[in-house]
Amino acid sequence: MKVGIIMGSKSDWPTMKHAADMLDHFGIAYETRVVSAHRTPHLLAEYAETAHSRGITVIIAGAGGAAHLPGMTAAFTSLPVLGVPVQSRALKGMDSLLSIVQMPKGVAVGTLAIGEAGAANAGLLAAQIIGTQDSQIMAAIDTFRRTQTDTVLSQPDPAEEA
Amino acid sequence: MKVGIIMGSKSDWPTMKHAADMLDHFGIAYETRVVSAHRTPHLLAEYAETAHSRGITVIIAGAGGAAHLPGMTAAFTSLPVLGVPVQSRALKGMDSLLSIVQMPKGVAVGTLAIGEAGAANAGLLAAQIIGTQDSQIMAAIDTFRRTQTDTVLSQPDPAEEA
Amino acid sequence: MKVGIIMGSKSDWPTMKHAADMLDHFGIAYETRVVSAHRTPHLLAEYAETAHSRGITVIIAGAGGAAHLPGMTAAFTSLPVLGVPVQSRALKGMDSLLSIVQMPKGVAVGTLAIGEAGAANAGLLAAQIIGTQDSQIMAAIDTFRRTQTDTVLSQPDPAEEA
Amino acid sequence: MKVGIIMGSKSDWPTMKHAADMLDHFGIAYETRVVSAHRTPHLLAEYAETAHSRGITVIIAGAGGAAHLPGMTAAFTSLPVLGVPVQSRALKGMDSLLSIVQMPKGVAVGTLAIGEAGAANAGLLAAQIIGTQDSQIMAAIDTFRRTQTDTVLSQPDPAEEA
Amino acid sequence: MKVGIIMGSKSDWPTMKHAADMLDHFGIAYETRVVSAHRTPHLLAEYAETAHSRGITVIIAGAGGAAHLPGMTAAFTSLPVLGVPVQSRALKGMDSLLSIVQMPKGVAVGTLAIGEAGAANAGLLAAQIIGTQDSQIMAAIDTFRRTQTDTVLSQPDPAEEA
Amino acid sequence: MKVGIIMGSKSDWPTMKHAADMLDHFGIAYETRVVSAHRTPHLLAEYAETAHSRGITVIIAGAGGAAHLPGMTAAFTSLPVLGVPVQSRALKGMDSLLSIVQMPKGVAVGTLAIGEAGAANAGLLAAQIIGTQDSQIMAAIDTFRRTQTDTVLSQPDPAEEA
Amino acid sequence: MKVGIIMGSKSDWPTMKHAADMLDHFGIAYETRVVSAHRTPHLLAEYAETAHSRGITVIIAGAGGAAHLPGMTAAFTSLPVLGVPVQSRALKGMDSLLSIVQMPKGVAVGTLAIGEAGAANAGLLAAQIIGTQDSQIMAAIDTFRRTQTDTVLSQPDPAEEA
Amino acid sequence: MKVGIIMGSKSDWPTMKHAADMLDHFGIAYETRVVSAHRTPHLLAEYAETAHSRGITVIIAGAGGAAHLPGMTAAFTSLPVLGVPVQSRALKGMDSLLSIVQMPKGVAVGTLAIGEAGAANAGLLAAQIIGTQDSQIMAAIDTFRRTQTDTVLSQPDPAEEA
Repeated sequence: MKVGIIMGSKSDWPTMKHAADMLDHFGIAYETRVVSAHRTPHLLAEYAETAHSRGITVIIAGAGGAAHLPGMTAAFTSLPVLGVPVQSRALKGMDSLLSIVQMPKGVAVGTLAIGEAGAANAGLLAAQIIGTQDSQIMAAIDTFRRTQTDTVLSQPDPAEEA
Repeated sequence: MKVGIIMGSKSDWPTMKHAADMLDHFGIAYETRVVSAHRTPHLLAEYAETAHSRGITVIIAGAGGAAHLPGMTAAFTSLPVLGVPVQSRALKGMDSLLSIVQMPKGVAVGTLAIGEAGAANAGLLAAQIIGTQDSQIMAAIDTFRRTQTDTVLSQPDPAEEA
Repeated sequence: MKVGIIMGSKSDWPTMKHAADMLDHFGIAYETRVVSAHRTPHLLAEYAETAHSRGITVIIAGAGGAAHLPGMTAAFTSLPVLGVPVQSRALKGMDSLLSIVQMPKGVAVGTLAIGEAGAANAGLLAAQIIGTQDSQIMAAIDTFRRTQTDTVLSQPDPAEEA
Repeated sequence: MKVGIIMGSKSDWPTMKHAADMLDHFGIAYETRVVSAHRTPHLLAEYAETAHSRGITVIIAGAGGAAHLPGMTAAFTSLPVLGVPVQSRALKGMDSLLSIVQMPKGVAVGTLAIGEAGAANAGLLAAQIIGTQDSQIMAAIDTFRRTQTDTVLSQPDPAEEA
Repeated sequence: MKVGIIMGSKSDWPTMKHAADMLDHFGIAYETRVVSAHRTPHLLAEYAETAHSRGITVIIAGAGGAAHLPGMTAAFTSLPVLGVPVQSRALKGMDSLLSIVQMPKGVAVGTLAIGEAGAANAGLLAAQIIGTQDSQIMAAIDTFRRTQTDTVLSQPDPAEEA
Repeated sequence: MKVGIIMGSKSDWPTMKHAADMLDHFGIAYETRVVSAHRTPHLLAEYAETAHSRGITVIIAGAGGAAHLPGMTAAFTSLPVLGVPVQSRALKGMDSLLSIVQMPKGVAVGTLAIGEAGAANAGLLAAQIIGTQDSQIMAAIDTFRRTQTDTVLSQPDPAEEA
Repeated sequence: MKVGIIMGSKSDWPTMKHAADMLDHFGIAYETRVVSAHRTPHLLAEYAETAHSRGITVIIAGAGGAAHLPGMTAAFTSLPVLGVPVQSRALKGMDSLLSIVQMPKGVAVGTLAIGEAGAANAGLLAAQIIGTQDSQIMAAIDTFRRTQTDTVLSQPDPAEEA
Repeated sequence: MKVGIIMGSKSDWPTMKHAADMLDHFGIAYETRVVSAHRTPHLLAEYAETAHSRGITVIIAGAGGAAHLPGMTAAFTSLPVLGVPVQSRALKGMDSLLSIVQMPKGVAVGTLAIGEAGAANAGLLAAQIIGTQDSQIMAAIDTFRRTQTDTVLSQPDPAEEA
């Protein structure tokens, strides 16, 4: 396992699945698990503290509302932690975003966008981090980005297509 | 000790002092300690898990920014936890407030106002909670509230005084 | 009756029901009533002022928009008051939240999250407050929390389940 | 007395003074008083319920934070109530504004801008309301507005003056 | 005609209808018209400048987005102007609210809540203003408020009814 | 005169001066005037309606709070109108921004950033608009932009300089 | 081609189509293209740098979320650039708006409202800019505006129609 | 050079210096440079495209307002990019934050907190990323975190110290 994907509730999976899909694209092994900062704090501590020794390189944590999972994961490990603000019901993820990104000096979470795009980009950024030490992954990212560019370039005039 | 007052950083003390002052007013014993959710997560777990057996009845936790201290304290204890959003530099405590109040179902934090008024009210609400089982405290709160009312009632016409 | 659950309008009941459900879980007696700060201010005053003598220990008040019910209830009683911001139509409960939580020094409302989760947690926090003087309730909360933890721990890998 | 100016705290007077100054300008009699929704709720009820019989035509209420004074005043009287959101420390009056303006159907507060301009305009709008039944006041408002217009018209080119 | 109800677009009518309904309740004559600050600025000027001489006592103006109608109406008349922020698509009426309420010193708009409740309350506040010089209307408002109170008082326990 | 710079109050001049400075840089003639949407609505109508015939090509309008000047100017002319949200006291220009930018379909305001940068850019965008028909101005803008680029390129390493 | 309409994704077309429709109304030639600041940055540079020589007078750029397209287009050309904040999923276009409008001094984007109205107005403002050098277009805008005014003036009483 | 620290303006250096200080602490080589997305877009492209071949592993980009630097850097490289929202004048960094974090799917920026804490944490997260392939750095981070923990643990009771 290179990447650990954790989320505060299984209801976060439809969002966090996009992180897994991105890692699948790059052939990077990962594990997925529901770990709740508030309901399973000891599991969270154990998960984060043993992640390095279990071979994890990057942890992706997604949560919504008063989203403490990414920051608390970062509190228990020296591995890079990426945070995904899951869109919340009332405040549309603004609470999730601020709870994840506004970390104090000394414990960092690299935060992505609210929702599915953010989850996908957490997978991509994890791949980029792994790519800094794995030239095959780096090459695959280059290809992914080039393909993405080509897809836009080959798009017909939107006024024609509609 | 009846009340534990904890805060994420000693820079939160000028705010949290107002909670202590309120408890002093009611003669309720309390302890104060810097406990950081992010920098001392194990201390936080231990503090919260042993609070009940140490005789603590209510925990008041203050923090700013991605303020995880109140919610994580609540995760480790069945005692009532009161949260004080400390005013943050850039976002003026809106981040602190949302990080504390928007807790998921199953782990509760009773949240007070941003800043000094919120800290003072955390002390007051702790006293009210203790007052539900201590008629002397309840009587003291009644007196406090009556005095407060009298102070307003005896205020001169603001247009005269200025 | 140990807990009074009041709400500004009967349209708040689908939200506030979650507070009642939580108290049911703990076998804590409660009463529910529509009390409007704006339309029945005298009822509110009478309700809050007589609550203690009627044996109420904690009052849970839910309201939306310019939500004055929790704060005005607190103005008329020395009992602990918990406030639930009901999600409003235009501003999604941000108005409800700020109207409830930003109380001035001297009159406190312990505020929970916007909407159903907040209502459920108001019931839980009320139980925790009662639990500080009732070891059976405290034990039941411990069990509730442990069960909640076990439920998360026993969840299958979300990637498997989907 | 034609107008009652009330405020939640004497610290609101530097703001609310601008309402008084505007009424002075129009020679409209007014009274000023600190009435706190949270600390003197019975005074508030009595003040609002007796205002009509004491000859008051309009009530101006200013408050900050979880600003319940204007809405609760409106709950106790059928007189028109104007609300002034006083600028709060952390949230700069956004909490005051939403707490005052977002009233439910059936109890209305005519809300003015945050701070001094809003207080001055509360005085002006009170004069306009009185002017609907007093042609001298209406004429004075016409003159005030014309003078205001003339002041702008006679302003030198700002680039010249600076 | 005692009250003029104007709105920026006919799409605002489903909201503004609630102002008309409230005036109907009190038997107060009113007129309704689409007047756009941006698309018919001369009509707006003429409408507002002639309102007094046409016997109008209060103008209610509703608009959404960059809602200039209430403030510009106030710029052209000394009559009291009440503003209703219509809920906008993207920003849910926060833009409408700030555009209406944050008027500079010297030109006032009494602003109500976003959407239907605000429109109804604009009708109510217009009635209250007229009631300051019409004891029959004032009595009708007293009755309206009492009925409203009685409706809440007679509501069954929400837990029973559901 | 090619450009008209108007502002709601002379207190806006320290902000709007930056628009004038930018036009000075390009040698574009302009006039400056205090025109208040709320206090001098007839002047505003006359100013905007005669601007084209007086040779004005672009109007820059700056205002704060419920900032109606840019939108109302646009309502009275077919010339391009650029809006500058002046930073307001309580809400820091968020009210000014939303009041200016959220115009309804059919009357457009090209809105710039809050404050001085926005005012400077209004001057620049006015120059760019004039530049579409004046190749000398266009060349001057190219030069301005190149110089700006060169200034950044020639900056020393910030770590060295500090 | 007089106007270039570009957008970050083809999913922006339903919004940006309203800019095209407005230009169609005025008979102004335009081209439409998907150009992504993030996925095709070199295309963006080339598009913007060659726009002037290809005869483009104004560029309209629409994007959502962290909307960099309008600002980066402006970075590569001296032509006027108009920005349309496309409504985003979680934050409803507030992120798009701030990402587009808050440009630093020296590179300007004339920003329109969030969503369809903003796109339509971008087309209108582009026509107004072209109209400063083309009296036929200017006359057509005058007519468009007059028709728009007449449409409002001829609207029946909304209370009748409903 | 392992890390490139770039910023949109030299006025961002007092913030971004905290990233450099953190890297200094870990003995990680870095370069610092002013690169403006808007004023030097070609330099940005060249900087980002050559970073990998120049041996850079992580890029840290800080900017304020409509902060396009981090996202555009990410558009030109497959290296991990970390974004620091610099606190802006009017909107206090909320605009910077949303402009950086809300990236679309396919181009990722790991975003840190607004201001100095965020800059320091960008340095820390860069070290953590490098630490995934450098056990000495990883050990140094473990030590840093332990020291940080010890510092909190050894803090005196805040009530004593004050």
